[in-house]
Amino acid sequence: MKEFWSSRIRDIVPYTPGEQPKDRTFIKLNTNENPYPPSPMALEYIRRATGPDLRLYPDPDGTSLRETLAAFNGLKPEQIFLGNGSDEVLAMCFPAFFEPDRPVVFADITYSFYPVYAKLYGQPYREIPLDEHFHLETEPYLGDNGGVILTNPNAPTGRAIPLHDIRAILEANPDVVVIVDEAYVDFGARSAREIIYAYPNLLVVRTMSKSRSLAGLRVGFAMGNANLIAALNCVKNSFNSYTLDRLALAGAEGAIHDVEYQRATLFKIMSTRSWTETVLRHLGFSVCESSANFLFVSHPDLPAKELQEGLRARGILVRWWDKPRIANYLRISIGTDSDMKALCQALTDLLTQAGISLEPMAQELLQ
Amino acid sequence: MKEFWSSRIRDIVPYTPGEQPKDRTFIKLNTNENPYPPSPMALEYIRRATGPDLRLYPDPDGTSLRETLAAFNGLKPEQIFLGNGSDEVLAMCFPAFFEPDRPVVFADITYSFYPVYAKLYGQPYREIPLDEHFHLETEPYLGDNGGVILTNPNAPTGRAIPLHDIRAILEANPDVVVIVDEAYVDFGARSAREIIYAYPNLLVVRTMSKSRSLAGLRVGFAMGNANLIAALNCVKNSFNSYTLDRLALAGAEGAIHDVEYQRATLFKIMSTRSWTETVLRHLGFSVCESSANFLFVSHPDLPAKELQEGLRARGILVRWWDKPRIANYLRISIGTDSDMKALCQALTDLLTQAGISLEPMAQELLQ
Repeated sequence: MKEFWSSRIRDIVPYTPGEQPKDRTFIKLNTNENPYPPSPMALEYIRRATGPDLRLYPDPDGTSLRETLAAFNGLKPEQIFLGNGSDEVLAMCFPAFFEPDRPVVFADITYSFYPVYAKLYGQPYREIPLDEHFHLETEPYLGDNGGVILTNPNAPTGRAIPLHDIRAILEANPDVVVIVDEAYVDFGARSAREIIYAYPNLLVVRTMSKSRSLAGLRVGFAMGNANLIAALNCVKNSFNSYTLDRLALAGAEGAIHDVEYQRATLFKIMSTRSWTETVLRHLGFSVCESSANFLFVSHPDLPAKELQEGLRARGILVRWWDKPRIANYLRISIGTDSDMKALCQALTDLLTQAGISLEPMAQELLQ
Repeated sequence: MKEFWSSRIRDIVPYTPGEQPKDRTFIKLNTNENPYPPSPMALEYIRRATGPDLRLYPDPDGTSLRETLAAFNGLKPEQIFLGNGSDEVLAMCFPAFFEPDRPVVFADITYSFYPVYAKLYGQPYREIPLDEHFHLETEPYLGDNGGVILTNPNAPTGRAIPLHDIRAILEANPDVVVIVDEAYVDFGARSAREIIYAYPNLLVVRTMSKSRSLAGLRVGFAMGNANLIAALNCVKNSFNSYTLDRLALAGAEGAIHDVEYQRATLFKIMSTRSWTETVLRHLGFSVCESSANFLFVSHPDLPAKELQEGLRARGILVRWWDKPRIANYLRISIGTDSDMKALCQALTDLLTQAGISLEPMAQELLQ
């Protein structure tokens, strides 16, 4: 029953986030959270902001955080936009930049929130297929678009887009905004931030949820020409003046300042990713080359859905989608070394149970 | 220059929130913040949530907070929707409930964010004039609307709407949603919450920013029939899965539990309001009867704009709008007793300087 629902939303199927179990303790490798806690400096900044001043509205412009982000990214504060997670930033890009009569384009296999935003805003869109190895081919993006969204590295595949491809797409679309969603860029891809000065149509979107271990705090941001940032502020200030609360503003600032902590946790995650990838290949999985904090994998002999269910029964959550082209793939977030050892052990069990013979090397790596 | 701006937003003039000064310390009576700090229980809940779990996404459904709000309001959890401040809840009501071809109606003098939301979503609207004393007349609201927004008590006037008027409007508009924005209801108006069971088209919107002293935390909510709440969830989950961070969810829950603290601070604010109103009347002001934590006042001999500027020069911020019908009014938030004494003293000075003779009674009250 949808009585009283506007015709604007009756046909929308909302985005489904990964499961957040409340009942029991899983090894959570299903939502690309960082396995390490936030920087102690982030927590200290939050503690300092937890006091009587919470009775007062936050700074609606988040000036201090924007100044900090600008300084750390070689930009000016007016080139930074803040949002309640990068999801909110992306949602606001649709009314800010796209025309109702020109389809925006993005890959067929990418963050599945993009088509949902489009439907919410009545924005036409076109999905451009990745090639059979999930690489992005630039040619179909060169011109005649109402806007472009690139995800670098892509989710759920983990594949990075070379900077020269992003440049080519920017140059072929000078009259529309090209968004580069860099939610996972810190885990090994090359950011387009360095070419912001050259392209007034480039918007780079980031989050503090992944590489800063702050998924629970909801802070995202965008970087780009001041004119693009002004458009996003126009949307934000027509929607909600204060999207970031005082604690989120404070914690994000603390996290940005703790450069060494982020470097160390990124290094650990990238090492663990490399180890996991090696074991999975020895277990017979095909693994997309990942520049993110997850691996996109497929096994030739055991369907992904069965693997997901088997892992769940063993207390490990991973992400699977019942969607064309990727229904035989799993997306596995990179956890701690011990999380990933448990994962590989569970996969070994599942494969063995299914009568699939394993390389001795895989067993050795798991010792 | 609005290059790359979508035609959707080029003509929007965003909402302007009250000033949040960063440079010097003012007595802030301009944004209806609560002069008392948040409940110690709210702060304690936040402190407990400030830890390693911030690396994990929040519960996208805010289940625990919704259960708490439901229990305290005699409703079921599926009758509660959570938002990042009531501004976000209201913003989401537009795509959730209103049809693009049927104008939604609200008062000409009310929360000035409503027409901004309407423009953002391309929603036609009609403003219905309040009478000359800023009372809401029900007759123009009875039928033939695409939706109704009532503000109870109204801002910036402070006037409450009797429950029988709200009932009449609900009954005359059975096919559209009637939103009652109760941001200030705890300060003395009668909530429409008690009639939710009777009207499937009634949505009551609340905030934790005012009576719970948590403007800095950004938590609002809506109460209504589960079907209306489902529509809001459809919009939310098509926009941003996690609008409330872990700390906001925790702090709000702590605040709700601290019933005695809220009772005591509400009582103080209502007493201070009463004292302030008395003094202002003796100073010659006309004062709208207020059921909110602010007073809407006008002086026959001194223009509101001059008063606002004079107060600012004396370190006191109040709100003034350069708008038809209310350009000679000030909206003054209720602060502590000492804030309000300083305000009345400053107004006395300004009136005396302007050569306006004062009742001896006003001076006596200020001793």
